[in-house]
Amino acid sequence: MIFSGAYARGRAQEQLSDRAFVTAMLDVEVALARALARAGLASVAAAEELASACADASSFDVEAIGATVAANGTPVPGLLAAIRDRVSAEAGAALHRGATSQDVVDTAIMLLARRALEPVIADLTGACHACAELARRHRDAVMAGRTLLQQAAPITFGLKAAVWLDGLASVRGELVSVCVEVLALQFGGAVGTLAVLDERGLDVGAELARELGLVQPPMPWHTIRVRPARLAGSLGTALGTMAKVARDVTLLAQTEVAEASEQAGAGRGGSSTMPHKRNPVGAIAVLACAQRGPGLVAAVLGAMVQEHERAAGAWQGESGALLELLSLTGSAAASLREALELLEVDPARMRENVDELVMAESVVTALGGGAAANKIVQAAVRAAWNERRPLRDVLFEQPEVAARLGGDGLERALDPAAYLGVAGQLIDRTVAAFEQGQR
Amino acid sequence: MIFSGAYARGRAQEQLSDRAFVTAMLDVEVALARALARAGLASVAAAEELASACADASSFDVEAIGATVAANGTPVPGLLAAIRDRVSAEAGAALHRGATSQDVVDTAIMLLARRALEPVIADLTGACHACAELARRHRDAVMAGRTLLQQAAPITFGLKAAVWLDGLASVRGELVSVCVEVLALQFGGAVGTLAVLDERGLDVGAELARELGLVQPPMPWHTIRVRPARLAGSLGTALGTMAKVARDVTLLAQTEVAEASEQAGAGRGGSSTMPHKRNPVGAIAVLACAQRGPGLVAAVLGAMVQEHERAAGAWQGESGALLELLSLTGSAAASLREALELLEVDPARMRENVDELVMAESVVTALGGGAAANKIVQAAVRAAWNERRPLRDVLFEQPEVAARLGGDGLERALDPAAYLGVAGQLIDRTVAAFEQGQR
Amino acid sequence: MIFSGAYARGRAQEQLSDRAFVTAMLDVEVALARALARAGLASVAAAEELASACADASSFDVEAIGATVAANGTPVPGLLAAIRDRVSAEAGAALHRGATSQDVVDTAIMLLARRALEPVIADLTGACHACAELARRHRDAVMAGRTLLQQAAPITFGLKAAVWLDGLASVRGELVSVCVEVLALQFGGAVGTLAVLDERGLDVGAELARELGLVQPPMPWHTIRVRPARLAGSLGTALGTMAKVARDVTLLAQTEVAEASEQAGAGRGGSSTMPHKRNPVGAIAVLACAQRGPGLVAAVLGAMVQEHERAAGAWQGESGALLELLSLTGSAAASLREALELLEVDPARMRENVDELVMAESVVTALGGGAAANKIVQAAVRAAWNERRPLRDVLFEQPEVAARLGGDGLERALDPAAYLGVAGQLIDRTVAAFEQGQR
Amino acid sequence: MIFSGAYARGRAQEQLSDRAFVTAMLDVEVALARALARAGLASVAAAEELASACADASSFDVEAIGATVAANGTPVPGLLAAIRDRVSAEAGAALHRGATSQDVVDTAIMLLARRALEPVIADLTGACHACAELARRHRDAVMAGRTLLQQAAPITFGLKAAVWLDGLASVRGELVSVCVEVLALQFGGAVGTLAVLDERGLDVGAELARELGLVQPPMPWHTIRVRPARLAGSLGTALGTMAKVARDVTLLAQTEVAEASEQAGAGRGGSSTMPHKRNPVGAIAVLACAQRGPGLVAAVLGAMVQEHERAAGAWQGESGALLELLSLTGSAAASLREALELLEVDPARMRENVDELVMAESVVTALGGGAAANKIVQAAVRAAWNERRPLRDVLFEQPEVAARLGGDGLERALDPAAYLGVAGQLIDRTVAAFEQGQR
Repeated sequence: MIFSGAYARGRAQEQLSDRAFVTAMLDVEVALARALARAGLASVAAAEELASACADASSFDVEAIGATVAANGTPVPGLLAAIRDRVSAEAGAALHRGATSQDVVDTAIMLLARRALEPVIADLTGACHACAELARRHRDAVMAGRTLLQQAAPITFGLKAAVWLDGLASVRGELVSVCVEVLALQFGGAVGTLAVLDERGLDVGAELARELGLVQPPMPWHTIRVRPARLAGSLGTALGTMAKVARDVTLLAQTEVAEASEQAGAGRGGSSTMPHKRNPVGAIAVLACAQRGPGLVAAVLGAMVQEHERAAGAWQGESGALLELLSLTGSAAASLREALELLEVDPARMRENVDELVMAESVVTALGGGAAANKIVQAAVRAAWNERRPLRDVLFEQPEVAARLGGDGLERALDPAAYLGVAGQLIDRTVAAFEQGQR
Repeated sequence: MIFSGAYARGRAQEQLSDRAFVTAMLDVEVALARALARAGLASVAAAEELASACADASSFDVEAIGATVAANGTPVPGLLAAIRDRVSAEAGAALHRGATSQDVVDTAIMLLARRALEPVIADLTGACHACAELARRHRDAVMAGRTLLQQAAPITFGLKAAVWLDGLASVRGELVSVCVEVLALQFGGAVGTLAVLDERGLDVGAELARELGLVQPPMPWHTIRVRPARLAGSLGTALGTMAKVARDVTLLAQTEVAEASEQAGAGRGGSSTMPHKRNPVGAIAVLACAQRGPGLVAAVLGAMVQEHERAAGAWQGESGALLELLSLTGSAAASLREALELLEVDPARMRENVDELVMAESVVTALGGGAAANKIVQAAVRAAWNERRPLRDVLFEQPEVAARLGGDGLERALDPAAYLGVAGQLIDRTVAAFEQGQR
Repeated sequence: MIFSGAYARGRAQEQLSDRAFVTAMLDVEVALARALARAGLASVAAAEELASACADASSFDVEAIGATVAANGTPVPGLLAAIRDRVSAEAGAALHRGATSQDVVDTAIMLLARRALEPVIADLTGACHACAELARRHRDAVMAGRTLLQQAAPITFGLKAAVWLDGLASVRGELVSVCVEVLALQFGGAVGTLAVLDERGLDVGAELARELGLVQPPMPWHTIRVRPARLAGSLGTALGTMAKVARDVTLLAQTEVAEASEQAGAGRGGSSTMPHKRNPVGAIAVLACAQRGPGLVAAVLGAMVQEHERAAGAWQGESGALLELLSLTGSAAASLREALELLEVDPARMRENVDELVMAESVVTALGGGAAANKIVQAAVRAAWNERRPLRDVLFEQPEVAARLGGDGLERALDPAAYLGVAGQLIDRTVAAFEQGQR
Repeated sequence: MIFSGAYARGRAQEQLSDRAFVTAMLDVEVALARALARAGLASVAAAEELASACADASSFDVEAIGATVAANGTPVPGLLAAIRDRVSAEAGAALHRGATSQDVVDTAIMLLARRALEPVIADLTGACHACAELARRHRDAVMAGRTLLQQAAPITFGLKAAVWLDGLASVRGELVSVCVEVLALQFGGAVGTLAVLDERGLDVGAELARELGLVQPPMPWHTIRVRPARLAGSLGTALGTMAKVARDVTLLAQTEVAEASEQAGAGRGGSSTMPHKRNPVGAIAVLACAQRGPGLVAAVLGAMVQEHERAAGAWQGESGALLELLSLTGSAAASLREALELLEVDPARMRENVDELVMAESVVTALGGGAAANKIVQAAVRAAWNERRPLRDVLFEQPEVAARLGGDGLERALDPAAYLGVAGQLIDRTVAAFEQGQR
């Protein structure tokens, strides 16, 4: 679709094409042939004949293989037939020995996931660096902290960027773990016993896992779909976290707020008649991708209820959802990274936007807290709001305030920059932890 | 994806390609030009120049248009530029007048939906006819009714097929209504006021709706997504209903049940070494498609929360989910129709499979019901189960049973064919209602 | 949960308690006894004895019945035992005759749905009236139309309120239809044949439907879950539409926008130290409820794949999701109605917030459109933006603008109130259609 | 609801009541007071006064607190008012110092999750032990392996049980990790700066985390919802895995298969008139709970898109979904454990059910594989199927088979027990790993 095309951005997409899928299946078949040879169950010559016949994935007709899927329910028989057409009978006999179609498809999807996650992780790393840079540069840029979309108390833009960094670094780390721990070989034969290989199945599996650089799991997982579920869950969590950051960007970019915008580059998010319009197109693309996440994760989880040794429908429905999730995560990561790298922040506007009423809590604290202080400030805030007068003027008219704080004390209590608690500490340690590679 | 390729079956797919999407957008632009001309807001010459420039959709470069989406967030500016390259300045000025990109995309998707639903409805009609035929042919074929996957009481295969027909006819009817009532024109301009057309916007909209054969809604629905939600809900309901039928087919096809199978045609669902294996590939494809339904409907519903006059992300994320739903529904309908048309039923095996214990309730009724009758039958059933003896023998040893029913009466009470209640009535009226076009 | 307690608002909740559920099941059993009596299959005395034994639902021990559910998988056997304890043997024999547990539970849930939808529809009607009133009162109140969270072109608040009305009236109408067409009797006995009633099942069903005021469906729908799916879809669509309105309210209530707020009543959404803070608590409650909608609809759709004559798990998992959806829709409707009835709008602030740059498109139109006009205005807008000068001043320095429009013409072209297209027409007809009961 | 009541099983439920939620919030407030005291920001006397005022959670009026939620959007202000009523002004001033409502609610939910997960993990451990026992006992019990619901090749019931163990041990381990790594303190004050505590916020947070035994996160996670998302994902994965096991149990328990049943205890899953009916009620309860999982995980993921420093709606909607997920996982684990502990396996029936045609692949292998062997066996299988004769007889008529294998060799090739590959190895190492605590 031209529209998914719109959001199919970033290098991950290349790893998720039909061509890439065929390549991954070929990689599995070749690795299996070599594993069999190493276990003495096929000749080295047969394995190498298969390897060279499969070396050029672009020589296989992806559409023709696709056309065989409806009758078989999987692309593997079609692929095997295409390979057998190219090799000797001996090599053909060694091909796919011991495996079932699902072994090849599941393992190929694990390979695709690993290949697609590499650029995803790179883009998330880039997005983290952009946040770290924003956090450092604007460490002390005071702005309104907002709760329930209302100004509540002051923060710094550095803190906001560090919160983003915290979230993005966390999901980035999770995806790195997924690559190492979750992505695994599938190899069990028709019903998980590898009976065709007699008692040598686990040895061949070990060689095959080594060949492909994947974990050898303790048990085939044909109908135990914990691995796809974890992959999906991590992708969904990454999409949700990226969307939080993107949501903040779109809110900061509102005409009435105007505290940040994606730098309008050549034709980016602009409008021919409205140069003031700087649509945050990167952030919007992230939000559009993330919109799809929860439903796709639900599809993968819903597909876990698989019958007996291999499932009738649920397995066949899972792969599309997983690959779509990988594609959307890739698009979102590429878009977010770009949006953050281009983010233009207006600290002056941030400071201007801070409503002085957000300092009420601070004045109460300065007055020593407690019911009495609270009452004075409440009355003053209400008067300032109703009469549209500056809060400081109203407060200074209160004898107790004047007496207790004096002009300077009141000024200090009303200064947002002096009411930031541990914002600086949080920023510094979050940025440092990321940059020192601890996250 | 080669895998979605696998399930992208049926004629609906042709209506959901990038090419079809560009065609639909061109249709909208041409219809708008003609509507403007009819309202006196453009010249007939300009409208007809546009119409001929857009007549051959295949002359537009779909990939090039797709490449413009990332920067603009929609394919419309890229498409407009391609059209303007082909026409005079006057025609170019009339092009797209009054509309916003979302008007074109939303309306194009409505057109695609209508075009894709046509073959979907045809396939559902075919599936209904297949069920009606099965219901009629096997009206009196006794089989076990099963609850909680346990045999419970007798039914006929005719009743099962009529229940399938009831469900499929219902969702078929709902999709027909959707075409007529839900699919509507979108036309509101930038913020829903059609300000560019001054006070003539609604007149142009009326002409445009007529031109496209779509409902003119009372109000633009840029951010009121009830129409997409209804379309999605109906598609999701159709998928779920088809999956219920498919689930029954896979259960009946189990080796141990063997009451029905998808007729193994040339290579269909077969296995080279296991000719006894008749994988119900059509039913499995339906189940695989349906696995994706709930999550996609959730995505469309989740995208309803759209900001102000046009949304930042939610709208952009909705279309992919809608089109995927249409594609899956199309595949499922094509697969289910084929599976039902090929369904081979084994009434003898059905009768054999009926466990005589399912007649216990019938014997209680024959004995006049009540606590005493119940107690007698319970004891007999338990004895038959424990001693693995025929229930009739155990029952006949009971003096009260022999006295009250006699041999013939007991035989009758144990005859599943005599304990079918209104099964025949339900079948007849369901088949008749469908065939008389009342559903 | 104390939290769902928080959002369990409105009168619908009373219809969704355990007590209400027991009441509904009693209503079904009593109606069945009367239907049997009317069909001559039970004595009137037995039916009336059952009716009086069940008349006081509060005399049944809900917790005790609940405690029987785990062993049976349904509350019906426990309920029947409790009724039989109260009646004669004859009445006990008539009780539940012909029905299966699922008949009672499904029908009871349909009754609950109808009872809960009544206040939901009333609250939606109230919310529609509030919108109509807002639309009429602020018909000409100019404000910024916003797309992608950026100001785009002028609208009126009346139009925004009319758009809300359009959406709410639409989902209100859909729920009315659901009550009439979707909510139906379930009555099929163990496997759908009503065999216990021999050939009289459909007659009894007709009486039973009449007794309960529900549709008699053409076929039992034990495993064809189109009705629950439609109910769920309509509730999900209603939640999504309400959330769109609520989202707009929260955005308008932002400190920096301040165009509307939920009138802060006694302690409502206020904060002791921050009287300027007027948290839109009603709108937030709507958004919180709606957050749950898509996943619950997905659960109901996912539960459609039910085996054979009655399902093993999917049916049992469906009811909780349906009742939760009803409860959330009830809460959301009550909260939204209140929020809209309390909505305080600030038309002066709306007008002030309109950025003059949104009039660029209007000036182009006034200059006659086309490439030349476009170029002039683009340059002017860019200059105004960069130099932070009023657009009108920059434009008036352009000889062509001055010559062509003059001061008055330019003033008119820059007047948002003169660039509203069909906003007034749309408002008037939407309000009129609603108030004349056409929607 | 009486129905959720039905599925609200196991000890986890006690930890998820309103009462338990109030208790957890009280625990947070007391721990905070002590942390403040330890940091020198409150007196030890005040902290201990608060601790004794809150010691008896049952003395708080849960309903009254619940009634305050609608106005405030959270139960915390109502709870604080109830505590302040009981303590001196000094203690009242120390109460909740530095915290915001969301700090208390989020942390309380983390405590509830930890408390509810303890029995969940215990039940999963019990279920694992039951699987290990089944795997060991039936290590060599041959049965049909089934793919796409068709018999495919032999396995043992030991292998099936070991596959279940593999899945359950994996999700059990994941939930243990969640308790240790994911469940964390929330403490950030109004906007994450802890400004009320000046620069001491992180010190107080460290003490508070220690007091509660929770991780102190690097940053408040008010709007970074990775932790709730991970918790939800793990619960959803656990539900899906349990449902796979339960699905297998219901399929094995089918009347026509009858290889396993949940031992019908006193009234468990039985039917008064059908003693042959042994409804697998435990497995069905698991499936019913799992039906809700994907949609609830989707709700939590969909709620990740939270605005600025604290969210308007998404946060408020998340907690209900999380607590529901915990409750359903608790019910499912309790039901599954019971079902597996009661599982009655019929190895004789398993062996009987094996269709000899599943040995075709084995004969091909015995004949040396390759095209010729394949062709012979194919023809024989087809003949056996069509003529309903024993495969061995047909094969033995083939001269090549007789010559090559002889009677004994053919017998061996047709023996399912001799064609089990690495089944035994997989069972042994999976059981050993679990029992040695490596999983």
